[in-house]
Amino acid sequence: MIFKPESGLRCYSTKKTIGFVGIGNMGRPMSLNLLKNEYPVVVYDVLEEVMEQSKHDGAKTASSPADLASKVDVVLTMLPTNQHVLDCYQGPNGVFEGAKKDTILIDSSTVDPSVSVTINKGATERRTSFVDAPVSGGVIGAKDGTLTFMVGGEESVYRIVKPILECMGSNIVYCGKAGSGQAAKICNNMLLGITMLGVSEALNLGNSLGLDPKLLTSIINTSTGRCWSSEKYNPVPDILPNVPSSKDYEGGFMSKLMCKDLGLAQDIATRLKVSIPLGSTTHQFYRLVNTMGDGDKDFSYVYQYLKGKI
Amino acid sequence: MIFKPESGLRCYSTKKTIGFVGIGNMGRPMSLNLLKNEYPVVVYDVLEEVMEQSKHDGAKTASSPADLASKVDVVLTMLPTNQHVLDCYQGPNGVFEGAKKDTILIDSSTVDPSVSVTINKGATERRTSFVDAPVSGGVIGAKDGTLTFMVGGEESVYRIVKPILECMGSNIVYCGKAGSGQAAKICNNMLLGITMLGVSEALNLGNSLGLDPKLLTSIINTSTGRCWSSEKYNPVPDILPNVPSSKDYEGGFMSKLMCKDLGLAQDIATRLKVSIPLGSTTHQFYRLVNTMGDGDKDFSYVYQYLKGKI
Amino acid sequence: MIFKPESGLRCYSTKKTIGFVGIGNMGRPMSLNLLKNEYPVVVYDVLEEVMEQSKHDGAKTASSPADLASKVDVVLTMLPTNQHVLDCYQGPNGVFEGAKKDTILIDSSTVDPSVSVTINKGATERRTSFVDAPVSGGVIGAKDGTLTFMVGGEESVYRIVKPILECMGSNIVYCGKAGSGQAAKICNNMLLGITMLGVSEALNLGNSLGLDPKLLTSIINTSTGRCWSSEKYNPVPDILPNVPSSKDYEGGFMSKLMCKDLGLAQDIATRLKVSIPLGSTTHQFYRLVNTMGDGDKDFSYVYQYLKGKI
Amino acid sequence: MIFKPESGLRCYSTKKTIGFVGIGNMGRPMSLNLLKNEYPVVVYDVLEEVMEQSKHDGAKTASSPADLASKVDVVLTMLPTNQHVLDCYQGPNGVFEGAKKDTILIDSSTVDPSVSVTINKGATERRTSFVDAPVSGGVIGAKDGTLTFMVGGEESVYRIVKPILECMGSNIVYCGKAGSGQAAKICNNMLLGITMLGVSEALNLGNSLGLDPKLLTSIINTSTGRCWSSEKYNPVPDILPNVPSSKDYEGGFMSKLMCKDLGLAQDIATRLKVSIPLGSTTHQFYRLVNTMGDGDKDFSYVYQYLKGKI
Repeated sequence: MIFKPESGLRCYSTKKTIGFVGIGNMGRPMSLNLLKNEYPVVVYDVLEEVMEQSKHDGAKTASSPADLASKVDVVLTMLPTNQHVLDCYQGPNGVFEGAKKDTILIDSSTVDPSVSVTINKGATERRTSFVDAPVSGGVIGAKDGTLTFMVGGEESVYRIVKPILECMGSNIVYCGKAGSGQAAKICNNMLLGITMLGVSEALNLGNSLGLDPKLLTSIINTSTGRCWSSEKYNPVPDILPNVPSSKDYEGGFMSKLMCKDLGLAQDIATRLKVSIPLGSTTHQFYRLVNTMGDGDKDFSYVYQYLKGKI
Repeated sequence: MIFKPESGLRCYSTKKTIGFVGIGNMGRPMSLNLLKNEYPVVVYDVLEEVMEQSKHDGAKTASSPADLASKVDVVLTMLPTNQHVLDCYQGPNGVFEGAKKDTILIDSSTVDPSVSVTINKGATERRTSFVDAPVSGGVIGAKDGTLTFMVGGEESVYRIVKPILECMGSNIVYCGKAGSGQAAKICNNMLLGITMLGVSEALNLGNSLGLDPKLLTSIINTSTGRCWSSEKYNPVPDILPNVPSSKDYEGGFMSKLMCKDLGLAQDIATRLKVSIPLGSTTHQFYRLVNTMGDGDKDFSYVYQYLKGKI
Repeated sequence: MIFKPESGLRCYSTKKTIGFVGIGNMGRPMSLNLLKNEYPVVVYDVLEEVMEQSKHDGAKTASSPADLASKVDVVLTMLPTNQHVLDCYQGPNGVFEGAKKDTILIDSSTVDPSVSVTINKGATERRTSFVDAPVSGGVIGAKDGTLTFMVGGEESVYRIVKPILECMGSNIVYCGKAGSGQAAKICNNMLLGITMLGVSEALNLGNSLGLDPKLLTSIINTSTGRCWSSEKYNPVPDILPNVPSSKDYEGGFMSKLMCKDLGLAQDIATRLKVSIPLGSTTHQFYRLVNTMGDGDKDFSYVYQYLKGKI
Repeated sequence: MIFKPESGLRCYSTKKTIGFVGIGNMGRPMSLNLLKNEYPVVVYDVLEEVMEQSKHDGAKTASSPADLASKVDVVLTMLPTNQHVLDCYQGPNGVFEGAKKDTILIDSSTVDPSVSVTINKGATERRTSFVDAPVSGGVIGAKDGTLTFMVGGEESVYRIVKPILECMGSNIVYCGKAGSGQAAKICNNMLLGITMLGVSEALNLGNSLGLDPKLLTSIINTSTGRCWSSEKYNPVPDILPNVPSSKDYEGGFMSKLMCKDLGLAQDIATRLKVSIPLGSTTHQFYRLVNTMGDGDKDFSYVYQYLKGKI
């Protein structure tokens, strides 16, 4: 609708223009995958240099979320906290100021489901459509276009955004009404944190008993303890190639981000009066790892805490 | 190699005679599978009526572990606690008194690896062979012959006992030196307890957020939180057929047995000065379930505790 | 008894008129103590019958928080949640609408310190004075006038409200700037929850070892484990007279209120990225007690959970 | 045999001879206090140089526990682990070999109560008397003679040993039958560990909220959170003088010893099937502190872990 490259062949006109707010570690590779799939992209970020970089990537830029929303068919936001998301949509020069009727709004930040419900309410009042669509898969998934998107909102909107999200992810899951994407993400990630710390404990205990972690991993993986953290993201160095534990715990999903997600689970559980004994213990453990200064290490680094770093 | 069906009569001569001590919930179906595979079986149990039952099953009986050991090629023990195992082998009228040179001893009880090491030492002094071979798979696995055996001891002995264990299990894993089977079992089961409680927390938290547990399970199972407890043994009723949660938490692996295994992990971790924050929290939670009188329920019953029973 | 109507005019000159919002389990006995000390009291509550009762107690009534604030020198609020407090002050017909310049506002609810900071900001803009002054001591302390008030705000305002609070409490502590009263209360109560559960564990473990809880209590109370929960509020029945544990765990400080305070501690810790391993474990334990239907029992009831109720 | 009351002047012969096994950080100052009170002392330790030192202190030496027991009226042992105690009494050249009828045996080590019960049984068979008498108060208490002794065994024996123990301690508590001293010690110390970590969490959380730890301590100490750890052994530097936290966490009660006591509590709780959620979480936390290399720091050092060391 917007770009009309007179070229006659590659027909951009059939692709919706995407506005992307938040061009960080995740946002940049995601926006690159949209560009690679020939979507016209307009970006906004609070950092000027980041927008410069996006220009080189082939995107256009906007001067505010409102400006961006006025120029695109679909807005996708990827921001760090509840407050950032609320401000970006509802605040002055926010998305809601610029969005037209029928603009589709997608928030891929990981936030409290109640934030998504609030944004959805605002969107409905303005006759725009909203889905929450947080991701799992980390920076690697963002680069490879293999993210999982967990989508909450109207199913009809899910069907519209699905092909767009498929440029960035390999698994687009519909979870139900607005906020459900966040709910699913947070529950899954709480469980992920638990299994990672659990696998680390099991392999470290086994090691103390004289069981080689590689052998014990292979036993667990054919037994009842097996989980994604043992099979695909083992925390012990050199059991799996290409996972953070084998690369000095660099890359991957940082402990501070796991801590954030566990904090969201904790907040929700407290609000809903639900008991999460392991979610809570895991949260406190990751909190300690952060306090001790290791928040930037991959979240599988907890193995080294149990083992005793040096 | 062994079956000679044309011979017209059961060819005991080519099959080793197995002595089975401990004919309980697990031992009985295991011994039946040995009989079904035409192994001659001699049993011993402290309960007279249990031995009567085994006679009807086709086994012979012995008057003590020593008597049993003197009559068989292979002794297999399946007993509830560390002390039972120590007494059964080392005590008066124990296995060691009756075992001949070259008798093969298999302990399938779940006990502290240090117990296995002690028994192995005694066996070596008597020139008999010993492996620890605890199982996972529960009563159902015992009946169906689909147990996993985790075997510790000399690899040459492992090769000898493997065909026997294959009558009772579908997965016979070699874990290393004596005690390694126990070590692997305990580490795996600690992780199993953690993932079960973790899955229960995630599905219960999701439920409070309005996410149907069935849908959330399907999302988790394609995502990073997936584990055996979510895929094969879901704690929420009516997500999976034929699992205890769908049968009023009857059958399966009782909470009190999970509690026992977590207690072994705890004892070992304390002795080896290893930190197991989640293993420990999980242990205390199962301990509470037991204290409250629900030790006989399947270990997936923790979901109901989080949800609020009644 | 209190008003001296024969004087011809209301003798405000000596005593400030107090407006009391929230006449519940705590608020009613507190307001009675103000009346007993001959303070004129005006009350507001959402429940009509509660206001009728206060009339019989000798108080006047108001039609809204705004109406109440316009009629009194000092407003004291005692409400259950963050949201109730925010609404009562900032909402339509709220305290801020009616308060005059120099009205003194006291919030004795237990809420997030950030709520107190917000209310204080609003008060300052309106040139009224605010202190947060949450209490400890429970219903018994409220009746006996032996509450502890933990006061946050300007020290000059603290000095003004001190004699009023002394009608209801025996210990009025100045904690620092606005919000500090809440901070102190929440930190203290988190520690209270921890020590109560800790004492319960110690006495229950001792009991299992054959140590009479009364004897063990006396040993602990002369040793390094001693704490208020062991000395003054022992969770084992019949060690101390007149504590809830000796009265079927009725009266006192309900488990659901301890759970609320632990939830506030948890929320704050998460927001401030602070690790509270025991605060968190204690919170989850009380959460479970609530989920199991025992939220109305005194918070020392955790002893019975450890012991196995029934 | 020993008393010679006719002597008229203070006469060593009227004092029982004490045999002291285990002259370590605790044992040395304790033995010095016995010598200061003019008890004849005979020592045994596995380290030759330690015995040399004791000679200079004024003690005699023995060549083994058996030799020592044969030369004294009272044997007092102060050893690090269950196994050391069992070996020292029951092993070759052990106390039991040398002890005469009526020798009084005192074990002041901190061990599993079941060890005390075992030793007591052996003592009874040999017609000697035994009490378990573990101490609290640490190295400082040992030097100052202000230890607390918790005594288990026959009350008549307690009365005999009391004046001896009073040379080393200021609080000699009778706890009941053999093993009760250990039981009381372990329950108390578990609670001590819990309150110390709890106080550290409360003061650290308060600090993050802007509450000075000194002020918050004073509030807690007049409120329901108060405990020995807040009043007498505050974990924040420079609140109390002369406590380890004010001396770089040197001296006092080392984290590794707290960890040992928590491990004993954990072992017992597991054996007796008792749930100790906070005892267990605290144990795992101290275990981590040890794993990270800080086992020699005073146990109040956990405050620095929560705060984030640097």
